[in-house]
Parts: sequence; C-alpha cells; structure tokens
Amino acid sequence: MNKFVYDIPTKVYFGKDQIGNLGKELSKFGKRVLLTYGGGSIKKIGLYDAVVEQIKEAGLELFELSGIEPNPRVDSVREGAQICKDQNIDVLLAVGGGSTIDATKFIAAAACVDHDAWDFLDTSKWAPIEKALPIVSILTLSATGSEMDTAAVISNLETKEKIGRMDRNLLPKVSFLDPTNTFTVSPYQTACGSADIISHIMEVYFNQENDLYMLDCFMEGMLKTVIKYAPVAMVEPDNYEARANLMWASSWAINGFITAGKRHAWSCHPMEHELSAFYDITHGLGLAILTPRWMEYCLDESRVDKYVQFAVNVFGVDPSGEKMEIAKKGIELLSKFFFETLGLKSNFTEIGIKPEDFSAMAKQACRGGVIEGFKPLAQADIEKIYQMCL
Amino acid sequence: MNKFVYDIPTKVYFGKDQIGNLGKELSKFGKRVLLTYGGGSIKKIGLYDAVVEQIKEAGLELFELSGIEPNPRVDSVREGAQICKDQNIDVLLAVGGGSTIDATKFIAAAACVDHDAWDFLDTSKWAPIEKALPIVSILTLSATGSEMDTAAVISNLETKEKIGRMDRNLLPKVSFLDPTNTFTVSPYQTACGSADIISHIMEVYFNQENDLYMLDCFMEGMLKTVIKYAPVAMVEPDNYEARANLMWASSWAINGFITAGKRHAWSCHPMEHELSAFYDITHGLGLAILTPRWMEYCLDESRVDKYVQFAVNVFGVDPSGEKMEIAKKGIELLSKFFFETLGLKSNFTEIGIKPEDFSAMAKQACRGGVIEGFKPLAQADIEKIYQMCL
Repeated sequence: MNKFVYDIPTKVYFGKDQIGNLGKELSKFGKRVLLTYGGGSIKKIGLYDAVVEQIKEAGLELFELSGIEPNPRVDSVREGAQICKDQNIDVLLAVGGGSTIDATKFIAAAACVDHDAWDFLDTSKWAPIEKALPIVSILTLSATGSEMDTAAVISNLETKEKIGRMDRNLLPKVSFLDPTNTFTVSPYQTACGSADIISHIMEVYFNQENDLYMLDCFMEGMLKTVIKYAPVAMVEPDNYEARANLMWASSWAINGFITAGKRHAWSCHPMEHELSAFYDITHGLGLAILTPRWMEYCLDESRVDKYVQFAVNVFGVDPSGEKMEIAKKGIELLSKFFFETLGLKSNFTEIGIKPEDFSAMAKQACRGGVIEGFKPLAQADIEKIYQMCL
Repeated sequence: MNKFVYDIPTKVYFGKDQIGNLGKELSKFGKRVLLTYGGGSIKKIGLYDAVVEQIKEAGLELFELSGIEPNPRVDSVREGAQICKDQNIDVLLAVGGGSTIDATKFIAAAACVDHDAWDFLDTSKWAPIEKALPIVSILTLSATGSEMDTAAVISNLETKEKIGRMDRNLLPKVSFLDPTNTFTVSPYQTACGSADIISHIMEVYFNQENDLYMLDCFMEGMLKTVIKYAPVAMVEPDNYEARANLMWASSWAINGFITAGKRHAWSCHPMEHELSAFYDITHGLGLAILTPRWMEYCLDESRVDKYVQFAVNVFGVDPSGEKMEIAKKGIELLSKFFFETLGLKSNFTEIGIKPEDFSAMAKQACRGGVIEGFKPLAQADIEKIYQMCL
C-alpha cells in the first residue's frame, strides 16, 4: 500500500435548482467571464438562458466561445486562449460535457502563457503548467469526470494525436452537477458515457498493487451503480434518481479518491485514445469494445483472484465454482452489459476500424514505453488486443 | 433525494513517512504554533519528538497545551484559547484522537472572540462562529472522524452537558493520517473506535429519505471494512493494512460525503452523549450498547426494507427468507460483532449506568425537541431504549 495525498478541493453544487448560486461563485474570481460550450444543445434545454441570466444578475461581463467539439481539438483551445488574452478574462465557465470542460482546462492554462497551447501536450516539449485561470463548470453529460479532476485530453488532427495530461492547476474550483441537465442525453450517449465511467473504475480496480479494501468496496459499489442505472436512464431519460447516480459516479470514478497512491498506468485509455485519434470515434464506445478483450488478454493464474472478486462482488456470480470459470463469467457478463443491455456495437469491424492501422495505433499507444498497467503491454500486446476486437 | 453542497477541502497526507511535509504545511499559516495533545501517549510512541523536530526545522515557534482529556472539557478549551490570545498563535496543531482535535477546534474558535468558550455550546446562547484559527491535525486514533469534518463535541461537567456543534470554520486545513501512529492503540480502544465509526455510518444509512444508491453502496463497503479489519487490528495491533483501512474509514464515515443532503437527525449519538455526560464513559462503548437496541426499537413493517438491505449487503444474510426474520438476523449479527467479536460489554448494568438516571438523560437527549431520525424519538421512546440496554 502506497502513501498518498488526498486533495480535491472542488466545491460541488449537486442537484436541481442550484443555479442560483452561480453568480455568487463566479464573482469570487472576478468580473469578466468566458462562457465555453459545444454545439448548442445547452440552448435547447434552456440552460444557456439560465446561465446568461445568472451572469447578468450578478453584474458580470459575459464573453463566449461556442463550438467546442467532441474529442476537443487544440484549435478550440487556441481560440479560447486568445479571447482570454484579448478580453482580460478573469474566470472560465465551461458548460457541457467532458469535451467542453477539457478544452476549457487548457484554455485556462494557455491563457497564462505566450507559447502555443499544443506545447503543453506535445510530449517532446511538455511545457510546465505553472498557473491557469479559475474554472467553474456546469456538467451536462455524465462520463469523463472532468468536472472534479485534474485531467484533460486534447486532440490534434494534424499530428493524429490525442494526448491527456493532469495538473492541479486544471482542477475546477466549483462544479454544478444538476442531473436534470442530463435528461436530454440520448440513450446512445448515455451508454457511451456509462462505459467511460466503468472503464475509469476498471483501470484502477484491476491493478497489481496492494490496495485499501475499503476503496475496492467503493469501486464495486460504483460499478454496481452504473450497471443498475445506465439502462434505466436509457429507457427513462428523465429519471432523476438514475441520472443523479450516474452523475455522482462519474465524478468519483476519476477524481483521484479511488486511486489513492496506486502508481500503475491505465491500459484501455491509451489504447482507446489512438482509436479516437485515428478515427474520431466516441471515447466510451472504444472503451466498451476494448475493456472485455483487455481483461481476457490479461487473465492468467497470477491475476485471476481480482477477476473472481469482480465477478462475485459486482455481478453476484456464485463464488463456489472454479476460479478461472468465475473470472471468465465476469468478463462475459460485462460484455453482455456493454453489447446487449447498453446496445453498444461490439467490435471494430462494425465501426470501421481497420487492421491496417493496428500497428501504427499500437505504436503510438505505447510511445512512452511499455504500458505498465495490470499486465505490462508492449506494442505487440496492444496489436493482439486490437485483433481480438475485430 | 435532496440537493446538497459537497465541499471538503481538507488536504490529507495518508500513509507512513509523511511527517516530512508537516513543517511546510504549518508554515503556510504562520510562525507561531500551538501544539495540543492529551495524556502523553504521543511521547511514548516517539511522535512528539518527531513533531517538535519538524517544527524546529521549519523555523517555527512552538507553544504547548497538554492534558486534553477524553470527552474533552470546556476547561481545556478555555485554557487553550487563553494561550492563543496571550501568545498570538497563528496555527493550531492537534496531535491525538478525536478528543484532542475536537477541543482544538473550539480553542481555534474561542481564540478569536472575547466571550467565554462555552457560549458556543450553550444552547441558549449559541454564539456565532465567525472565524477560527487554522487547524492542522495528526491523528492517533481512528474513530471520530474529527480530522476531516466540521464537528466537535465538548463536555461541561458542571452543567452535566456534552454538546456537539458543526461549523465550516472548524474544518482542519490539513490532516496527517499515518496508520503506524495507531499501532499502540489498545484492543479495547480499537474496539470502541470501530464501534464509533460503525455508528456514524448507521446513523446515516438508516434514514427515511430517498438516497443515492451509490452512497448506500459506499456505506455498506465501509461497514464491511470495519467489520473485517477491527478484529484484525485488535489481534495484530501493527497490521498496517488493518489500521489503514480503519483510519480512512473513520474519516469518510463522517466527513459529510455519505450524508449528501439528508436532513434527518442522528439518533444514537444524542442518546449516547447523555451517557457520557452523566457517567463519562467511552463514547464508542455507549454507541455499541445503544445501536442494536435502537435498531430493534425502530423495526416495523414500514422500515423493514432498510434492515433487509443491511443484513444482506453487509453481513451476507440469505435474502430469500422472510423480511422480518432477515432484519432481526442483521441486528443479531451486529450485536454479536460488538459484544463477541470486539468483546465490548453488552449492557448498562455491566458498566454501572443506572435506571434512576434514565429519565433525566432522556430528557436532556431530546432537549431540542423530538429527535426526528429514522424513527422520531421523544423522551418516552428514549427511556424505553435505555431500558432495553439494561
């Protein structure tokens, strides 16, 4: 068990009818607010108007950057940073899902430097993030956990790269989590978001390091929560209880709490980032396809106990059988959940990802060296896992 | 499901070999440090010397208040506040268990006002807590969760009162949670601390309000954690894994995370505070005796489902039987855990609490009105529960 520092000071307003606190919170950071958002869905649900009203009531000055895309691109980051510089922005207000919040994080950092925004993500440069403008977020999609974590992932279509980075300066100061803001999320996006949450937990749960049992219990609880409520939210999109559980799970799956000192790398995320970088597919879908294959690939006698724990505690598999069988049953049930219950496409062929790119994607996925995760993965291992996804 | 604000900015250094960060953290708040502690056990385990060394190395000035008692008294609070005023203290460093940290919280508040410290706790006055000196804590007993919450309980032997109060200004800024600092905690104190943690969870878990399922899963996970590791820590006091799990559970049982907007009052704690106020017994012991009786008293058809959930998910009781039987089995297993596994005394008679005080204690316990908890408890109900504890 490793030592760790727990330090997650993000303040969260959870539940409906909390937006009345927005003006007060923004005002703590200054007068000039840059509102960032995506494709306009926040206008359809009335959230845009509500936000603008709060900002005006609080006597703040509003600036806007719209059109932040899924798998947000460095171009949007550059554009936002320029607005911050030109308009002397004091605080950023990201309204959207993980993509909008991620882009906003690097806008906040890039606003404070003279160099190009990509220098923060170019692995050959890795420019230091010494400060960032304060960020407030209003979440509209339960998935990435960006609302309460230090990470952001930015894509560069020119270089075919999708790079993530964590830094304490990127942590939102305040986040508004109102489940009703996710009522219009489509069944498909709900499924992808839920697969993303599950992956965040699995990446930590399946780990070689000796753990705090308490945190394993929490992870199993979060997995059961997503498995219970994702299907409900798909069928009853305005089920508050379902949306609320998915929303709070999305934050706690990845805010650092469950990681607690574990140093092992994540596995499926780097493999998936290359899918998105090469094909611009939905992150959660890629993770859903990869995760059961990765589990299957890593399964052996030395790792089987964790699979058994997962199968028994998350899916209620009878613990009395043979270990390997219980482990395989757990993988099977997770696959069924992704591809039957959530109805996600189950393989690369169906979504147009082609074997001729496997080598290049696998090479990129481990460009920092072998992925030292649950099982170490070199380029050849990753190619094999990609093959299993066909 | 209610809305809530999540806001727990306490920074936690968890694990062994973290004390090297103490000087740096204290220095953020100033130069003049008041170290508060209890009966000297911190000297026996070498923690006192380590703390003094860190303070000296950081070039800080050290002042001391020792002798803070279990069920800390307002007299210690007054004494500490006077030192703060006389010596212009910048930051308080509480080294100990919940009693030391609780006393330090009100020292921190009382240092900032001219009136008597008890005015904060006298329910007829309830003086506002507008500010407090910053508090850093080093925990040596896993129990109260004071290291990461806004609450403190102070006793007044003159008035025979034990009063708790919560205020954001009382939240420690930084806490050091090193499981090795609890290695010398006796089996009996480990048992009492564990009963306290369990009670904190039960008070929230047994609640009439519609809940986040995810948080119920977390609570069940924490209960399983304490049930698994308390007996281990009693038999192997230097089992790091056991001590670490109990320590992190103690913080998360009561830092507000699991409460998440639930407004219902706690039940066993106010009933127990009167035991301690009248008899000065150990808090966790009183809670262990009260909790199963309270559960039994509240059990009826309208509440039985929560008992079933508890019995099945925490103790693995077979869910296929009759609900009332499953519920009773859960209470029975919790009693066995407290009184057989942990070896705690199981009734008031054994610890000298006498029926002639029941009426006065029950009256005090609900002096703020009926306790609107899982089941509303008026004075007569509380007396009946006390009777069940004989």
